Amino acid sequence: MRRLIVALLCLGSGVLLAEAPPIAGRWVVTLESFGVPSYYVMTLVQQGDKLTGDFGGDKLEGTVSGSEIRFRAKDEQGGWEEATARLEGGALKGSITIAFSNDPTHPETQPFTAQPAPLRPTRPPRRHDFVPTTFHRQFSPAIPAVLTIAPGDTVHTTTVDAGGTDEKGTHRVRGGNPQTGPFSVEGAAPGDTLVVKITKLRLNRDWAISDDGIVDRGLDSDLAVKMKEGGNQVRWRLDVQKGVATPEKPSEHLARYSVPVRPMLGCVAVAPPPAQAPPGTGDSGRYGGNMDFNEIVEGATLYLRVNVPGALLYVGDGHAVQGDGELTGDALETSMDVELTVDVVPGPGGGGPPRMENATHIMAMGLDGSIDGAFKSATSNMAAWLSDRYKLTPAEVAQVLGTAAEYRISEVADRNAGVVLKISKERLATLAPPSK
Amino acid sequence: MRRLIVALLCLGSGVLLAEAPPIAGRWVVTLESFGVPSYYVMTLVQQGDKLTGDFGGDKLEGTVSGSEIRFRAKDEQGGWEEATARLEGGALKGSITIAFSNDPTHPETQPFTAQPAPLRPTRPPRRHDFVPTTFHRQFSPAIPAVLTIAPGDTVHTTTVDAGGTDEKGTHRVRGGNPQTGPFSVEGAAPGDTLVVKITKLRLNRDWAISDDGIVDRGLDSDLAVKMKEGGNQVRWRLDVQKGVATPEKPSEHLARYSVPVRPMLGCVAVAPPPAQAPPGTGDSGRYGGNMDFNEIVEGATLYLRVNVPGALLYVGDGHAVQGDGELTGDALETSMDVELTVDVVPGPGGGGPPRMENATHIMAMGLDGSIDGAFKSATSNMAAWLSDRYKLTPAEVAQVLGTAAEYRISEVADRNAGVVLKISKERLATLAPPSK
Amino acid sequence: MRRLIVALLCLGSGVLLAEAPPIAGRWVVTLESFGVPSYYVMTLVQQGDKLTGDFGGDKLEGTVSGSEIRFRAKDEQGGWEEATARLEGGALKGSITIAFSNDPTHPETQPFTAQPAPLRPTRPPRRHDFVPTTFHRQFSPAIPAVLTIAPGDTVHTTTVDAGGTDEKGTHRVRGGNPQTGPFSVEGAAPGDTLVVKITKLRLNRDWAISDDGIVDRGLDSDLAVKMKEGGNQVRWRLDVQKGVATPEKPSEHLARYSVPVRPMLGCVAVAPPPAQAPPGTGDSGRYGGNMDFNEIVEGATLYLRVNVPGALLYVGDGHAVQGDGELTGDALETSMDVELTVDVVPGPGGGGPPRMENATHIMAMGLDGSIDGAFKSATSNMAAWLSDRYKLTPAEVAQVLGTAAEYRISEVADRNAGVVLKISKERLATLAPPSK
Amino acid sequence: MRRLIVALLCLGSGVLLAEAPPIAGRWVVTLESFGVPSYYVMTLVQQGDKLTGDFGGDKLEGTVSGSEIRFRAKDEQGGWEEATARLEGGALKGSITIAFSNDPTHPETQPFTAQPAPLRPTRPPRRHDFVPTTFHRQFSPAIPAVLTIAPGDTVHTTTVDAGGTDEKGTHRVRGGNPQTGPFSVEGAAPGDTLVVKITKLRLNRDWAISDDGIVDRGLDSDLAVKMKEGGNQVRWRLDVQKGVATPEKPSEHLARYSVPVRPMLGCVAVAPPPAQAPPGTGDSGRYGGNMDFNEIVEGATLYLRVNVPGALLYVGDGHAVQGDGELTGDALETSMDVELTVDVVPGPGGGGPPRMENATHIMAMGLDGSIDGAFKSATSNMAAWLSDRYKLTPAEVAQVLGTAAEYRISEVADRNAGVVLKISKERLATLAPPSK
Repeated sequence: MRRLIVALLCLGSGVLLAEAPPIAGRWVVTLESFGVPSYYVMTLVQQGDKLTGDFGGDKLEGTVSGSEIRFRAKDEQGGWEEATARLEGGALKGSITIAFSNDPTHPETQPFTAQPAPLRPTRPPRRHDFVPTTFHRQFSPAIPAVLTIAPGDTVHTTTVDAGGTDEKGTHRVRGGNPQTGPFSVEGAAPGDTLVVKITKLRLNRDWAISDDGIVDRGLDSDLAVKMKEGGNQVRWRLDVQKGVATPEKPSEHLARYSVPVRPMLGCVAVAPPPAQAPPGTGDSGRYGGNMDFNEIVEGATLYLRVNVPGALLYVGDGHAVQGDGELTGDALETSMDVELTVDVVPGPGGGGPPRMENATHIMAMGLDGSIDGAFKSATSNMAAWLSDRYKLTPAEVAQVLGTAAEYRISEVADRNAGVVLKISKERLATLAPPSK
Repeated sequence: MRRLIVALLCLGSGVLLAEAPPIAGRWVVTLESFGVPSYYVMTLVQQGDKLTGDFGGDKLEGTVSGSEIRFRAKDEQGGWEEATARLEGGALKGSITIAFSNDPTHPETQPFTAQPAPLRPTRPPRRHDFVPTTFHRQFSPAIPAVLTIAPGDTVHTTTVDAGGTDEKGTHRVRGGNPQTGPFSVEGAAPGDTLVVKITKLRLNRDWAISDDGIVDRGLDSDLAVKMKEGGNQVRWRLDVQKGVATPEKPSEHLARYSVPVRPMLGCVAVAPPPAQAPPGTGDSGRYGGNMDFNEIVEGATLYLRVNVPGALLYVGDGHAVQGDGELTGDALETSMDVELTVDVVPGPGGGGPPRMENATHIMAMGLDGSIDGAFKSATSNMAAWLSDRYKLTPAEVAQVLGTAAEYRISEVADRNAGVVLKISKERLATLAPPSK
Repeated sequence: MRRLIVALLCLGSGVLLAEAPPIAGRWVVTLESFGVPSYYVMTLVQQGDKLTGDFGGDKLEGTVSGSEIRFRAKDEQGGWEEATARLEGGALKGSITIAFSNDPTHPETQPFTAQPAPLRPTRPPRRHDFVPTTFHRQFSPAIPAVLTIAPGDTVHTTTVDAGGTDEKGTHRVRGGNPQTGPFSVEGAAPGDTLVVKITKLRLNRDWAISDDGIVDRGLDSDLAVKMKEGGNQVRWRLDVQKGVATPEKPSEHLARYSVPVRPMLGCVAVAPPPAQAPPGTGDSGRYGGNMDFNEIVEGATLYLRVNVPGALLYVGDGHAVQGDGELTGDALETSMDVELTVDVVPGPGGGGPPRMENATHIMAMGLDGSIDGAFKSATSNMAAWLSDRYKLTPAEVAQVLGTAAEYRISEVADRNAGVVLKISKERLATLAPPSK
Repeated sequence: MRRLIVALLCLGSGVLLAEAPPIAGRWVVTLESFGVPSYYVMTLVQQGDKLTGDFGGDKLEGTVSGSEIRFRAKDEQGGWEEATARLEGGALKGSITIAFSNDPTHPETQPFTAQPAPLRPTRPPRRHDFVPTTFHRQFSPAIPAVLTIAPGDTVHTTTVDAGGTDEKGTHRVRGGNPQTGPFSVEGAAPGDTLVVKITKLRLNRDWAISDDGIVDRGLDSDLAVKMKEGGNQVRWRLDVQKGVATPEKPSEHLARYSVPVRPMLGCVAVAPPPAQAPPGTGDSGRYGGNMDFNEIVEGATLYLRVNVPGALLYVGDGHAVQGDGELTGDALETSMDVELTVDVVPGPGGGGPPRMENATHIMAMGLDGSIDGAFKSATSNMAAWLSDRYKLTPAEVAQVLGTAAEYRISEVADRNAGVVLKISKERLATLAPPSK
């Protein structure tokens, strides 16, 4: 982390010099292999003709000669990179030879391009009103941004429901969690953490669609037999004033049944890395996506690792209310009025599944093809967070989790099950202060 | 359920007649096969020389001739029972031929013995102070009761910690969750539900033992490598006045770490059926046992299906505080001051894993060798409960669970993982009133 | 099945009439919703002006009036379709209103287009030699076919290894199981079954790449600690003459280690339905894909449900040899010489995960995010197969599986785990003959 | 291993001295805590008044003074033991203080008793014919041996079927896998490995009982609905001459169904450690037990870790034939004629789940509450075996498993699922020879 602060200072002074395009600073390197880009963040520190710094986590050493640089970086497992590049029009262009640590005897050479990592804009935060006209059914790094916003900015927009119907009841797009966005965030470089705070999340129509069956992950053989007729659509009335939901045509025993609404976003995502096939909007992963966690509500903050320049933020799949797990396969699906404030923190937030925070807790998600796997994933994600942020040793992590773990089963309806491990901020307040 | 109320009325009138030993009423039938008893509840209704009623859930019809009865019962899958018996000294003795529905062509004949199901005592509730002198490491139907109490009674006692050490620090018994009890509950017949309310649960010493590793169910391969040195004992100080726990010799980053105590019982059990090998006190099942659920605290009520006459209630394994899942393999293990009030409800509470209740929620536990399996088990248990108690159809169950499910991961440290499905009483209040 | 044979006869006679474009016959209906096509097979039987038949599994009734048709179809759960269309240039064009059974009160209307289902060509089978020039990293319905072949035809081609390197050692494409194809199969309509027989599968170079770690699904916490240095590339020498593989630079204890090669295809796939995001070539599903099952060798036959007209067959990811499960995350990855014969069977082969057959066994695959789930999936797939093909009742299925089930764990290295349930043809030979 | 050979030599020479009772040698130490014994193997090497050796795996150093010894042992994690004892009547008696490595600051003192580890008898192997009269429904260390046999001996006996019925059709004991035995094996000390070779396993009656349902682990929700009527008993005819099984009253489609018999033992067990509640005979674990693996047939050899002096070998639950997994919950259950040859190998065979061997493969079992867990357990068990026996490094283990792993799903019907990892002896033959 310290490394990056130094880098930004250098970069800052470089900017002041204006005319002389600086080599020192933070760069986003793009390596293309057969048309598919991979991104790395590189930090260069120049002292005379000496170059030091970091390339994608590997320490580098090299030299500067005029507008040419030359460096070699290496990791601790035997992998290394060797590059030469020339500063042209503000970009570095050249070639790089990479030997991956798991196969160091077969290095490959490819073109090297680097752009200066965008600086965090210094203008005051703005508020954007964005009216969506198209909606997307994949979390893709290839879809052009519909709007570019800056860290600190707030964007106000709307989302259609999971079936593609908007607040006026107009069917706008084929169903399957169509998304609003993507929003590009200036200065978000691959490896950074995008911070998404949901500042407002409100119902904007008076009905929702749901279901009356239970998904397979909830069914033992007894319940499967009982539920064999399930899976029919149920329409709910949303009383936006009173904040309660009731079945529109309730069956006998639900005649008086009502449940307070608690609007949430089923999907918040950044674009995943270009090397992977763009997932559909029913899927989830390290990029976030269709997490269906009922604490992603107004006031919640999400931390998502940035994979492509600009991050490309998607939101959608609003639920008026959802029980834990989204047991019926869909919650009370409805359109939504959404307001988000975004920020960018240099450096990774773990690299695992998403992390979250609200007024009372920090929360680490786990995602896997089984609940057992998601449980391990959430535990590992939180353990890494506590270790990064509070410098806890593994034995200390165990003691904190053993006394303070709160697990929620967020999602069982989709390909990935989700488990969330929460730690109360009251407990964290008795730890040493988090590291910067 | 109605059936049982009728039966009790008959039984009641029989008791009034006093001299003439009644045939009508509720009986506990014992069938012994090669020395292993099985229990059934039988309800007989006599009208002249006609006999009707129910044998272990199967409708029966028969005749009374003096002190002799003769009946045939059958289920809907082709199984049947045929018995003749004679009333002798208040008991029914004779023989029964049983054809199980999965093999109706191979009936077996065996001796038949029935005792009147004990009536609920009418004396006012009592309070018992019980000082344990022996502790048990199996939940066994063969261990004689240390005390017999009546429905409505309260018993005050103490438990040793999981390692067998009592409130004075004396090591009393080999570790492994040694239990206080068993307490026999008058009138509890196999098939009934034992209701155990924890009226008081307090710390009675100022230290606890725990661990600094994480159990296998919480470890992915990354965390396994980090945690490989874990599993050492950690001693905690319990400040009973302030109600907080702190590590006795905290390592660097836990110097100020503290956590409020929330005393809980790791184990509450009835004896399992005699046909099964008595489980050790680290295990759990339909009989309850080592559930390690951190909401089994003062104020909680448990519902456990009775398997043997008298139920045989065991308690132990107090935790000063425990995070969800008992992630370190043991919580803050300590001795405990316990007060319980028991009751018996005729008829089953599901027959699945335990159910619970507190001021705000009803809770259905699921237990299985995987968290995924425990999730299904909890869902099925709650679905059956909602269907029994509120007459919800499967589609209605799905709608309630879809909007109101709250899942907790109770236990990952033992052979069975546990998941608990909670439903808020606020939601239940908008359903039709529960059936009696 | 009978229905389809009737349909083909009608269609046959229609073809003979030549001039009068027939309405009777088998049609592929395309419905587009917001640009995404869905396909249905429709069978029309005309008797005078009466129309009967089947629309996507729902029985239909209607009328013919000149070149106009009008029909209504319905399923047994309350869903229905109503269409009117006109024969224009050999295609039917019109509109359809669909009410899905789970929401019958909200029908939607959309354009209706149908093309005659292509007939099975009557020319003699051909052999195609195809030299691939491009390779694909997604199983996509949107990639144009590189070659169109007919049922009965044989195609001979080559595949690059999982890393994208061909038989000459040339790196041709970015890694990740790049595929040869897709091949379009004439006459393959959505809902049909594509039959792919691997007639020849041979090594075409003398080296392979593999790994020396174990994937997470194989690691308990003990083994995770031991394996923490794993994951390095290992190069193997393939002795094509002798048919054995040996590590190129073996470590001490593997100095003499050798293993017979058994060339297999890690990937065989049809294009999945267009409504789903095209999966990457590391993934698997009902479309087949990266199944990594070591019995997909020369002589094996695969049955894959067709999702789009022409099926679009992909092959790739050859392995010189692979232990069960692909435990190291990759097998002995190499390029391959492949020869396939394809066929098309009208009507579905289950609709679940792929089915296979070799000289000795029929095999039903299960795919899921856990091995436990894949086990259920394989069992259900085989139960459906035995029921369809041999008319076994559920109780009969249980008796056959109970005595003859052979389970293999095919794959643990990817997102889906795979389990295969095999039944020996010797056992099947004692069943009644399969239905046609 | 070398250590033990030295020890035995010393012990041997001690025996020659006869009069002077030797201190050097291999001892079985019994420590009793609150009436529950724990066993340790101790090896003492005496040189003058110096004592060296090993206590339960910890290196020890001490002194001998006349008939008194005094030693201190320690492990590498900070645990230690300190003992003083006196040789009295051939036994060592004294006291020991133990500080476990996970809590070294709280040592406990307890009585110390050691008996010389019994030597392997030198008489020629015998053959025992044992006719069982009682059968046991728990794998218990507390049940007295019915027969004592020596390493190398062969015992011929019979087993009743899972329901307790013998070869004459007599119902001998309540069902639930009642066992023949236990047999005590002379010289088997805790920590040793009991080797059980099944030299003969034959049918001894002409019928078997099975079932027509499928257990929950095999049911997804679709198959659960189809199978909801299942679970009825099916009687099979065993043609002992022809070696085939056929349903006695086959339903329509099974009229000609037949399956070759392949007699196997569902249960082979040693007594588990006394500290654990004795498991019922439907359960499995490191002690073996109800493994239901259909390769435990004539010719197979099992390796089971000894937990108590004499090992206490149990056998039962014969199956005429069983598909993988015991999918119907029971196989073709029948009585059996059994012949076993036993041996004892000093030192552990892993300490994990059972290992096996037949003419073609070595096999490592994994047992867990989920198939996923059993898969990890089997993999870890085999990895440890390859590492112990062939000195393979973790990277070498991965390469062997990656190319040669063969997984079987042995059991899904009981509380533990079972997976077996097999490695062909042809592959092992190309490794360096196994270490002695």
